[in-house]
Amino acid sequence: MRLATLNDGTPDGRLVVVSPDANSCAAAPVKTLQEALERWDELLPQLRAIADFPDPLDMAQVTAPLPRAWQWLDGSVYASHGALMDKVIGVDKPPVDWPLMYQGVSSKFYGPTEDVVMADEALGIDFEGEFGVLTTRVPMGTTAQDAGAHIALVVQINDWSLRTLAGPEMKTGFGWVQAKPPCSMAPFAVTPDELGDGWEDFQPNMHLRVHWNGEQFGDAHGKAMGYGFDKLVAHAARTRELVAGTVIGSGTVSNENYREVGSSCIAERRGIEIVDEGAPRTEFMRFGDSVRMEARTTDGRTPFGAIEQRVVSL
Amino acid sequence: MRLATLNDGTPDGRLVVVSPDANSCAAAPVKTLQEALERWDELLPQLRAIADFPDPLDMAQVTAPLPRAWQWLDGSVYASHGALMDKVIGVDKPPVDWPLMYQGVSSKFYGPTEDVVMADEALGIDFEGEFGVLTTRVPMGTTAQDAGAHIALVVQINDWSLRTLAGPEMKTGFGWVQAKPPCSMAPFAVTPDELGDGWEDFQPNMHLRVHWNGEQFGDAHGKAMGYGFDKLVAHAARTRELVAGTVIGSGTVSNENYREVGSSCIAERRGIEIVDEGAPRTEFMRFGDSVRMEARTTDGRTPFGAIEQRVVSL
Repeated sequence: MRLATLNDGTPDGRLVVVSPDANSCAAAPVKTLQEALERWDELLPQLRAIADFPDPLDMAQVTAPLPRAWQWLDGSVYASHGALMDKVIGVDKPPVDWPLMYQGVSSKFYGPTEDVVMADEALGIDFEGEFGVLTTRVPMGTTAQDAGAHIALVVQINDWSLRTLAGPEMKTGFGWVQAKPPCSMAPFAVTPDELGDGWEDFQPNMHLRVHWNGEQFGDAHGKAMGYGFDKLVAHAARTRELVAGTVIGSGTVSNENYREVGSSCIAERRGIEIVDEGAPRTEFMRFGDSVRMEARTTDGRTPFGAIEQRVVSL
Repeated sequence: MRLATLNDGTPDGRLVVVSPDANSCAAAPVKTLQEALERWDELLPQLRAIADFPDPLDMAQVTAPLPRAWQWLDGSVYASHGALMDKVIGVDKPPVDWPLMYQGVSSKFYGPTEDVVMADEALGIDFEGEFGVLTTRVPMGTTAQDAGAHIALVVQINDWSLRTLAGPEMKTGFGWVQAKPPCSMAPFAVTPDELGDGWEDFQPNMHLRVHWNGEQFGDAHGKAMGYGFDKLVAHAARTRELVAGTVIGSGTVSNENYREVGSSCIAERRGIEIVDEGAPRTEFMRFGDSVRMEARTTDGRTPFGAIEQRVVSL
């Protein structure tokens, strides 16, 4: 089952169930995805039972599945991304035996085709292609073994980053505030079962194809997470209850053979250039630039639809 | 003017205007503080016009003024606190010319007398007494000069911390997730003008008296911020719009003469012990311990009321 949220002029929009061919939709029995996640066990059978899709799906009206959330916790669990980023930023992090994670802004998620407003081109505007999950309520102290049952939906995310600010903020130990403006989400939130073999061991078993200004930039595979989403949810819930509708991210999708598959963010390519050539050559995004991100299963399906949007000036 | 939120069984509670003697209250013209902050310019005159307070104020029903928020960004701008914490944690942060700030969990703020649930006594349970502001919507790129006008209300906060986890998380550069469970808020949110000379240069000009298990632990003065709240709001809004109802914190209140005034968190006293005696002597909180925090103006008023609560086991 796939869900989408339509712009109805309210902050949380209007939830619909999407037809298998994504051409039509049906109103959900609750107004918003947030409400559905709060009552997930009760509502899931009703949502699944919907078989008639009477309304055409107007993609221009599709917002982020969750246009705002009470909490966004983003992991960073693709090892090759972390290693390259440390080179770019010039930090030497101590090795840790837990998934790296920070809390980011969740009061807004951009829709898949919405223009992304950035304050300044000089801040090192970068995309970060990743996967995420939306949880039901997760009690404090939930173990990784139990955490998987709280993963209601899988989403595809662009975690926008401002690289000029990221290194200095990271070095304070306080994590990122200015370096992390709001993220974007692809059109559809998808139940794990709908992904078929595109979801294995609580990881996305599919490629994430990234185009920058129309040219393919990366096609890294999702199933290279050092910690699956079950472990990320449990990590986040160790000392706090996770409110229903919490968004947990994987961090930038990256593979060890990055020279073959490419990257899901510009900073990583710059890291490769530093390794190979001694200095970065690829510049960050300019106003007017576009990025497209679309995950693809082995049988060629694109379950989340595509993010395709432009960066614009404040 | 002082506002409070009463528990009515819903997540956001019911907003009331509090009488000058805090013995009674009047229903606000909107149901929640979140809604009031979204329509602040329009509603403020209506709220201020309320002069009859027909209902007794039952303090047992008072929750956090904002029981949940879309965003909580906590600064750390008391220099003596930062210097001591670096000693405790064993980090040597680069000096920066901006206010340190991290994003914390905002999906729940404990009420002033609510039991605080912690996962494990071994995690170094600590309180952190601080001040905060609640903002109206702040457009991206708002300057410090303009930011002050977006400060709607001042609040008093206990930023709960788990010290055993804080150092290791900080050293990754990602900031704190597990080390920062939800915060608590004192009963009343107060307009800056109501504070009189308790609010100067966008800083709280008053002492914050902290008691731990009935004994006075600290009485540091609020007006020692390296950056006032106007600058903190502007810092937070540099690359993102701040949604109405954003909570911005000062970080732990601390003074250079900490040996005389005491501390607003246990970790700081441990830092002093490390400096003075070579090792920390004061242990962190145990289940059943209580903390009381109450800010006091020069003329003896306690505008926010008191936080007084116990730590309990999950």
